[in-house]
Amino acid sequence: MIEDRHVTLAHGNGGRHMRELIETIFVRHLANPALDVQLDAAPLTLDHALVPFITTDAFTVQPLEFPGGDIGSLAVNGTVNDLAVSGAVPQFLTLNAIIEEGLEVALLDRVVKNLAKAAAAAGVSIVAGDTKVVPRGQGGGLYLVTTGVGLRDSACALGLGAVRDGDAILVSGPVGDHGIAVMLAREAFELKGDVRSDCASVLPFTVPLAGLVGVRFMRDPTRGGIATVVHEIARATGLDIRLDEAEVPVRDAVRSVCEILGYDPYYLACEGRVVAVVAPEIADDVLALWRVLPDGEHAGRIGTLEAGRGRVVLQTVIGGARLLEELEDDPLPRIC
Amino acid sequence: MIEDRHVTLAHGNGGRHMRELIETIFVRHLANPALDVQLDAAPLTLDHALVPFITTDAFTVQPLEFPGGDIGSLAVNGTVNDLAVSGAVPQFLTLNAIIEEGLEVALLDRVVKNLAKAAAAAGVSIVAGDTKVVPRGQGGGLYLVTTGVGLRDSACALGLGAVRDGDAILVSGPVGDHGIAVMLAREAFELKGDVRSDCASVLPFTVPLAGLVGVRFMRDPTRGGIATVVHEIARATGLDIRLDEAEVPVRDAVRSVCEILGYDPYYLACEGRVVAVVAPEIADDVLALWRVLPDGEHAGRIGTLEAGRGRVVLQTVIGGARLLEELEDDPLPRIC
Repeated sequence: MIEDRHVTLAHGNGGRHMRELIETIFVRHLANPALDVQLDAAPLTLDHALVPFITTDAFTVQPLEFPGGDIGSLAVNGTVNDLAVSGAVPQFLTLNAIIEEGLEVALLDRVVKNLAKAAAAAGVSIVAGDTKVVPRGQGGGLYLVTTGVGLRDSACALGLGAVRDGDAILVSGPVGDHGIAVMLAREAFELKGDVRSDCASVLPFTVPLAGLVGVRFMRDPTRGGIATVVHEIARATGLDIRLDEAEVPVRDAVRSVCEILGYDPYYLACEGRVVAVVAPEIADDVLALWRVLPDGEHAGRIGTLEAGRGRVVLQTVIGGARLLEELEDDPLPRIC
Repeated sequence: MIEDRHVTLAHGNGGRHMRELIETIFVRHLANPALDVQLDAAPLTLDHALVPFITTDAFTVQPLEFPGGDIGSLAVNGTVNDLAVSGAVPQFLTLNAIIEEGLEVALLDRVVKNLAKAAAAAGVSIVAGDTKVVPRGQGGGLYLVTTGVGLRDSACALGLGAVRDGDAILVSGPVGDHGIAVMLAREAFELKGDVRSDCASVLPFTVPLAGLVGVRFMRDPTRGGIATVVHEIARATGLDIRLDEAEVPVRDAVRSVCEILGYDPYYLACEGRVVAVVAPEIADDVLALWRVLPDGEHAGRIGTLEAGRGRVVLQTVIGGARLLEELEDDPLPRIC
């Protein structure tokens, strides 16, 4: 058992204290048949009929816990979702924890417990990991890194190269929840609101689409929000994107906070949403499919691709049109 | 091109500045056919006749550059070596950079360049990555995380379960070089020495052994040094280990610094050495094979496994014997 109430540098030294930290916190919550902490590397059992995909992400969110999630659930869902929008089904994760000396052991325990819960919900096993402890004042409490391996059907052709003039852009739910929830959890703001992070696996939204004819491309709008995703699509394809402001779902509570503080929800991170580009003739079918899912009731068709030169045009509710700029200054750093 | 001389928070925001940082530094040095920064996840091409292995490691070394290496070469070799000692040949790496606001862009450029050089030397491609920027005072300059996928012959049976009473313990070169090189590079010490880190891929040492009958187990002695590796073997097998002090290779310069500062080189990190457990009848053959390799001339047979109860006994040069304790307090934190 671990005796200390706070993590010390000795918990990162490769010796007995580190072994105790790993066994007491990480192995206890993450134990599964594929995890053997005595191994330098873990074997992966993969179905050879499918194509393995890999992705990686670091998580530095502040604060470490927020309404609707914490850095643990975020670290699983962020990487799960990068595989999901690639059309892959996540199988395995690796986990790195960079812990700042002085972190409360009880907090670390809660985070790893939620991480395990998110992994179970998404059907992934943690197969390898590593912990480092950095001196007080050099770590922001806790940084996590997850790397995920998933499998995709070899016939799946999702990608920016498949996007066509006339395609529809869909979003699976309201935007900006995660950004505002984390922002409100920061003590610097006096505002209190009832906004929870949307932090969740998007697999229920992506798995039915991955094999569907007419689905071109999917992405999860995290850092930089949906504005950044549509700019990436416009830049890569050279097509213009017309976004319809009236159709972009934004919760009233999120809109209110944004108006008070001068944020634009289009640039705020989601952690449980999907943006999909689909052929116009299947747009309604996809929306119907999404809207019956939990958290899918507000899914909407938010835009269209048109011949052009890589611009993003916002059709406003009052009937005007303006260029939607690429993100310049970060509205909310440390959001994921 | 990137205009700033120092990394700012805007370089982590998911927008234009981040894209510029990634393209100018990371893509420029790491470009390879398998790296597509537009993708959320990267496909892996694997030989189905072999077994994929995965491993991950975080690197928080201070200072970021030291004689014989830097955090970039370390981040590649550390993960390459975890696969190598597992009997796998590394194929792909993912890379996460957690950058502290204010880091000099020129330093980051040098580190990523050396990282690319180490990856090329080890024959691995960087296929996916992620950067985050954390506020000044929360990052120690730069933390790197690498996750590696390698392939191992399905007949390979390396593992602690294969270790037998009577087996020999070998080390591929002098111990403690990395620990002392990094320590001397810290300005806090006035000592100057001519010690370079042994930071390198150990693949030349492990590949010829992976298929050899009689090779039981390999590990790279990083954090905690060879003392920690032999304790892991003793604990896992329940066998005693008798280490022969006269046979453990330690460079004179490392020994001198250790004597002055009261360090024990057995507990200091190596980053380019292998400890192998082999059947006694092949020990000389393995040493002969290793000694003709670059950096292999000091390879030695340093110990023997005996029936016992998981203790590590050091046979000293003056003829005595004492228990070698498991690492308690970290002699040199932030060594990798």
